[in-house]
Parts: sequence; C-alpha cells; structure tokens
Amino acid sequence: MNRQILLDNHPRGDLQHSDFKHIDGEKPSPGEGEVLVQTLYLALEPAMKGWMENRSDYVAPMKIGDVMRGNGTGRILESNNPDLPVGTVVAGAWGWQEYAVVGGKSSPVHALPEGLPIPTAMALLGTTGLTAYFGMLDVGEPVAGDAVLVSGAAGATGSVAGQIAKLKGCRVVGLAGSQEKCDWLVNELGFDGAINYRDDDVNAQVKELFPKGINVFYDNVGGEILDIALANLAQHARIVICGGISRYNLTGEIPGPKNYFNLVFKSSRMQGFILFDYQDRYPEAVAFLKDGYLSGDIKSQETITEGFEYMPDALMGLFSGSNTGKQLVHVAD
Amino acid sequence: MNRQILLDNHPRGDLQHSDFKHIDGEKPSPGEGEVLVQTLYLALEPAMKGWMENRSDYVAPMKIGDVMRGNGTGRILESNNPDLPVGTVVAGAWGWQEYAVVGGKSSPVHALPEGLPIPTAMALLGTTGLTAYFGMLDVGEPVAGDAVLVSGAAGATGSVAGQIAKLKGCRVVGLAGSQEKCDWLVNELGFDGAINYRDDDVNAQVKELFPKGINVFYDNVGGEILDIALANLAQHARIVICGGISRYNLTGEIPGPKNYFNLVFKSSRMQGFILFDYQDRYPEAVAFLKDGYLSGDIKSQETITEGFEYMPDALMGLFSGSNTGKQLVHVAD
Repeated sequence: MNRQILLDNHPRGDLQHSDFKHIDGEKPSPGEGEVLVQTLYLALEPAMKGWMENRSDYVAPMKIGDVMRGNGTGRILESNNPDLPVGTVVAGAWGWQEYAVVGGKSSPVHALPEGLPIPTAMALLGTTGLTAYFGMLDVGEPVAGDAVLVSGAAGATGSVAGQIAKLKGCRVVGLAGSQEKCDWLVNELGFDGAINYRDDDVNAQVKELFPKGINVFYDNVGGEILDIALANLAQHARIVICGGISRYNLTGEIPGPKNYFNLVFKSSRMQGFILFDYQDRYPEAVAFLKDGYLSGDIKSQETITEGFEYMPDALMGLFSGSNTGKQLVHVAD
Repeated sequence: MNRQILLDNHPRGDLQHSDFKHIDGEKPSPGEGEVLVQTLYLALEPAMKGWMENRSDYVAPMKIGDVMRGNGTGRILESNNPDLPVGTVVAGAWGWQEYAVVGGKSSPVHALPEGLPIPTAMALLGTTGLTAYFGMLDVGEPVAGDAVLVSGAAGATGSVAGQIAKLKGCRVVGLAGSQEKCDWLVNELGFDGAINYRDDDVNAQVKELFPKGINVFYDNVGGEILDIALANLAQHARIVICGGISRYNLTGEIPGPKNYFNLVFKSSRMQGFILFDYQDRYPEAVAFLKDGYLSGDIKSQETITEGFEYMPDALMGLFSGSNTGKQLVHVAD
C-alpha cells in the first residue's frame, strides 16, 4: 500500500479538506537507474497553496488528480542505481506519498547533507534556508549597522533570514503573530526586538524601533505590513519580496501596496527573486548554513506534525501561524 | 514692479486657479555677493503639484504665501559678485517671479551651458534630462537587445529616457496620450513603436509588442499602466519608478500596484530614485546629453507658453497632456 494525497480542487479562499483526496495507491517498482524511496518527512511551505490555485505562471500548472507537490526526505529501499545505494537518505520532490520511484532524469534526488538531524537539514539546508540566504544577502544586501525588519520572522525562512542579518552586524527586529513567538525571536535567536502584529499598533512600534528608518525589509507577508514598511524606509532601502502569506487566503482583487511611491521619495527598491536563479551557488549557501548551525551561530527550529494523514492540516496551519520555524510532517522512521 | 505667483491653497484633487495668488511685489536689490536676475524662462514639472500639496516629506514643506517653487533661467541685471557678471544667463530655483536676488549661499545659480538654445539647455541639461539619464542608465540598466517600455514617453523625461535606451541598442516602445504624440515618437525620435493609452487596449498592445516580456519599464505614470507592465515582465526585469502623474490628481486612498507580486515570479525589481543622489555625476550626464544633441543623436522638444501670467495654466496642462517634451513659460527676452 502507498498512501497518497492528491489535488481534488483548485482552492479559492481558505484551504478546505475537500481540496485534497486521500487514496491508497500501488507501491511502485523502480526501473533501470531508479530507486524506491520510503518517505520519512515531508516539508510544507505557503507557496503550495499558490501551486494548488494555479494562479501564477512561474511553475507548471497543477491539475486535479495530481499528487500534491512538495519536497521530502526518504530512505532508499530498493535500488537500480549504483550512485544511490539502499539505505541512503535522500531529498527530492516526489510529493505527498509514502513511497515513490525516483532517481531517474525526471525525478532527481540528492543525498541529504550529513552531520545534522534530518529535520534540521530539511529546514536549514532545504529550500527555506537557501531562500533566506540568497534573499537576505543577495537581494537585501545588508551591511553592518543596518536596521533590518523581517516579517513572518518566526517562520522557516524569516527566522533564518533574521539570523543571517545578525551575523552581518545588523540590528534586527522581527514581526510575528504571538507574544510567545516574539519572545522566542529575542531570547532564543538573539533578535534585537520583536513586534506582535496581532496585538500592537504595528506602525507606531515600527516608527519607535526604527527611528532612522528601515534599511532592509525582508517580507514574507505582504498586505498592510508591506505598506507600513514602505512608510518607514530609510534612504536607499532594500525591500526583499520573499512571500506574501497575507495574500494567499484572499480571493478576488488583492490590493497592491498603496505606499509604493515612497520608493521614489526614499530612493529605494523592492525586489523579488526565485531561489532557482541561484542554483549554481547552492553549495556556498549549504556550507554557510551548516557551519553556522554547527558553530551555534544559527539555530534551526522545526514544528513536526505526526502522521502522513495530517498533511492538509499542517499546510492549513501555516496560514493560521501554528508553526514556529519549519513545518514538517513525520511520515515514517 | 516684480510680478510673483504665490501658493494660495494646498490643492486636493485637480489644480484650480484659486490655488495660486498673483501679486505685484517689489523689485529686490542684491546684497554683498548677490546678483539681480531677470527671469527669461520658467520650467514646469508634475512634481510641483506634490510640493504644493505637502503630501511627501522628501522636500521642505511649502507654506501658503510662499513664492511658487521651480527652476528657471534668467539674465543678470546687477551684480555684486565677480563670478557672475552682468549679462550672464544663469539657471537656478528662484521660483515663479520676474525678478529675484540670487547668487548667495541660500540661492545658488550656475551659468547655463553654452552652445544650445536656452529652452533646449533647460529641457535636456536641466532636471528632466538629467533624471532621464540617471534613471534609465543607472536604475534601469538597459543592455543591448533589451525590450524597453517608457510611459509618459512624449513628456520631457520620457522622451529623453527612450532615446537614451535607443542609443544603448534597445528596442523601445513609448506610451503616450494621443496619436499625434505616438507618431512623433516613432517618426521623429526613432522609437520602435508607440501605444496610445487613450484609444487602445493597452494590455493587448503591450503583450503584442513585448512577446518575450519587458526588460526595462521606465514609468512616469503609475496606476493602471504600472499594473499592465507588471503583468508583462520578462525575467530579471527592472522597473524604474520616475513619476506617477496618474496619481497626482487623485484624492484619498490611491491604490497600489496590485500586480506587484509578479516581482517575485519574474525575479524583478522596482526602484525609485532621486536625482540629487547623482549630484556628483551631473557633469558626466550634461556632457553625454549635450554631445548627443549636437551630434543629432538626441532630439529635444519644448512646448513654450508665452507670458508669465499663464504659469498656472502651463502647470495644469501637464496633467491633461497638453505638452510634448518640456513645458516652459517664456517670461522675457
């Protein structure tokens, strides 16, 4: 048996359980050059909702009945590929299923970097950690002494992006959705400040914490928070558009940032990026993040949900903020 | 007698004649190190409306009763400054008045570059030409073969920005507000195409003229046109936010660009700038633009209104698109 979760509906508005279909598929057999993996962990990220919706054209469209897309790690159970021996733990994008045939040209996998717990390697050395690295350093271009604001700071990408800015000598403030997360940012990750966007007058707090304006804003949220940041920029500021989680559960016309024209008044820029653009430099990022973790300079946090069948709940939880750090689902040992 | 026009009201919505007050002031006398100039031409630009409104904080606020701010050229009638002899034609920012005392520390002037007609020097070597130069080259970073879209292309800045992109080997399309202006862009300035934003389905035209997407969008307009450009970007595109003339006559909440998130899907950036940031490099830009004009590579167009008393009308005309190229008012010979 091979439990799988398929796309059953292109969602509009909040995700529903009815957008997913749980089936029992066949356990497949590897062909020449291929291997059979058993899924150990699957990773969740907000962008998945966009893939399900088919709203954008930057990834291949998802069709009803497709296995839900996503990254995971697994152990090789059978191998027809001498480079991928049985027992190896690999990472790949075989989606929401307990078993998969991978390792061929259309389904590349790579051995998970060693020396870190599997969940930590998935969080820090996977797409979210790499996104934080290139987004903060290459798009944000922080320099020592900069005042940096990170939204979604207790999330998988934001928490790493903020720590990288700290390592560059910046003063870093995070926006998060609970007092507990704010305390974690300051006490555990060493952020210089944190703002609870649910409780506080965010604009007043940003003004107070950034008396000379924001030099770098790393945005995972969009919406009102982006407008507040635009209203509080320093000259020559850089806004990194990494995500827009506030947008993902809205339907119809989603308003744009009304304060965008402050980019002119502040000689500033707002820039998006796709991780894949930096593919050639992944080894550099992996080395930096792994060294940072092993030396204690960078901490990694994972929220692990038990049980394959709770994948939809884990994804929905990203939009209500139930996770701190990387949201994973533990599928098998 | 020294006719002056003062700010009489902070405008909201469309400019009105009642926002201006015409008075007869005293002809002033120059003190030590100062000179008396007689205004020859005054220059108009859309940003003036923003100054009058006091909406932004990037320039000193204008108060009711202040002489209207703006750049002009004048001839020195009396001089207490050996560096500025009587008869010299100078440029400066003494505002909307027929005579002014300038040349002291708080009111610097500089001799107008020679070899060009005064209106041409004001258009091409003044703020609008310099803005086009740094905005297109430093912010837009066009490379040969790029597909470049310019909005407000028949205006003072857009017309120069587009010609600069042509000189860099780009394919350039302009957006303008009449068929006559579109014809002028293509036939006189050598643009590769032009779109009349009043008559045509702009989105369909942009899609047709940019089959591989827009590499550089030089935006003087904002609003719907910015959203159309965002929907048609190539990968790694650069949007230069130079102006937002569509915004200037709106009141209340002005919507932001709802398609901003395409910056992520297209790994693109949107960047504003202030001319003053490039102050140290003005001589480089002046030399480039002057050489371009004298060699025939860059054409300059001015719309000249006769008579100081028509300054308010000339400013209002910028928002209805009555000008082609730089709008000037001829005050005296």
